[in-house]
Amino acid sequence: MVGRLSRSERLVAMTKYLADRPHSIVTLSRFMELFGAAKSTASEDVAILRETFDNLDLGKIETISGAAGGVKFIPFLAEEEISRVSKWLAGELSSPTRLLPGGFIYMTDILFSPRHVWKAALIFATRFCSLSPDCVLTVETKGIPLAFMTAWALNVPLSIARRNAQVTEGPLVTINYVSGSARRVETMSIARRAIPEGSSVLIIDDFMKGGGTAHGMVGLVREVGAEVAGIGVLIETAEPREKLVNDYLSILVLEGLDEEAGRIFIRPTVERLS
Amino acid sequence: MVGRLSRSERLVAMTKYLADRPHSIVTLSRFMELFGAAKSTASEDVAILRETFDNLDLGKIETISGAAGGVKFIPFLAEEEISRVSKWLAGELSSPTRLLPGGFIYMTDILFSPRHVWKAALIFATRFCSLSPDCVLTVETKGIPLAFMTAWALNVPLSIARRNAQVTEGPLVTINYVSGSARRVETMSIARRAIPEGSSVLIIDDFMKGGGTAHGMVGLVREVGAEVAGIGVLIETAEPREKLVNDYLSILVLEGLDEEAGRIFIRPTVERLS
Repeated sequence: MVGRLSRSERLVAMTKYLADRPHSIVTLSRFMELFGAAKSTASEDVAILRETFDNLDLGKIETISGAAGGVKFIPFLAEEEISRVSKWLAGELSSPTRLLPGGFIYMTDILFSPRHVWKAALIFATRFCSLSPDCVLTVETKGIPLAFMTAWALNVPLSIARRNAQVTEGPLVTINYVSGSARRVETMSIARRAIPEGSSVLIIDDFMKGGGTAHGMVGLVREVGAEVAGIGVLIETAEPREKLVNDYLSILVLEGLDEEAGRIFIRPTVERLS
Repeated sequence: MVGRLSRSERLVAMTKYLADRPHSIVTLSRFMELFGAAKSTASEDVAILRETFDNLDLGKIETISGAAGGVKFIPFLAEEEISRVSKWLAGELSSPTRLLPGGFIYMTDILFSPRHVWKAALIFATRFCSLSPDCVLTVETKGIPLAFMTAWALNVPLSIARRNAQVTEGPLVTINYVSGSARRVETMSIARRAIPEGSSVLIIDDFMKGGGTAHGMVGLVREVGAEVAGIGVLIETAEPREKLVNDYLSILVLEGLDEEAGRIFIRPTVERLS
């Protein structure tokens, strides 16, 4: 509580407060206490916020009525913005300078860049928020920032499957899986207590070729007695068309690359997103 | 541009816009264009924002004059808030249920929890922003969310050193280092292009015992011809007192634990933070 504030001050402070707490219910009495405002005043403020967020596509402000009620900010991108962001990401990743010997693409700068990752995570948060997952799961290492930002936008914890059992996390659940690209049997583990039994898990990863890794994570989720809410990957390859998992959402498709001409063909996944 | 907005709408939208873009300069003309406002009006809005952010400790709004000028949001925690957050983190991590066989502490839920990590990252952003680092460096895996959120708050890219050389990142720089705790020679690598020569690097990690891993990262930074801006760790152990690096900042100190009584002693690092 900082004394009585003007409407302008309250709107600025409320916006910041909510933007910092996605998917958290903030009670009206919390706002009244924070800003020294009467209930009717705080309600009016919230109405202005909701309308402005709506009109300007800043996300959604949801009001929840009842005893446990309050206000909630839901990060949400409009369809045009999703399309714009997807094209922008496709453009950035198609740069010829990214081509590495052996037909690999250098993507770590994008995958570890806060502003790129945040936008991609907002796409996942928009697509998956109606499924209300209890947590996000990824496997180390490159997809961690993306999975973490998705978890942040959905206000749920992140779990990270490790490729080597770690002694410092207590009892583990370990599975073997066949990596789709390398056709090797690999291992991933997760701390037993990282995913509660019965919870609904959103799987997020940066890249999907054969789908072996995602399939492995699905196995891990089932092994701990939880269920898969959905699977999201930043980029899938066009080939092979048949993946080891069926139901997933990608933001981009890697159509292929021409090593001699130094070209990379990446496009937004229009079909699946619409 | 969405048509003329009222002051209330502009303040809400500007706050959201700036909060989503920490440490980015937004020009006044961008605001004028976005909200259909005259220059004088936009200037007044910014003045209200700056004052409100200041008065309510929401971070800093900096105005930059000149041709390349504009407005910048700088995430920043007040000293009381840093102290409050540090105590809260210490309390969460001291819970007896975290004690694992062998004297380990289960911390991954906190390290992967968006709301905890965000607060800790804001402490680092507050402490290190005056050093204007060009990027943040960490080593996989547990410290990645914390390092990424620090990078997000400072609006710089993250680089992640890998424990295994990855074939898909192009030319690598690899060093050997002695892990302080295990007294083993270990290896870490980073893509040559991940850290530009001459850049100033902020090293962030979750845990420091002997300081061997941080020392290794310092070596990696020097090897690529960059320099260390600072080192931040979430928790350091009280013993050994002598670390392999001298100049670092920790948020918490693990004083020790009593396995029989099931107690963990973690406190905020008061000396170093004040």
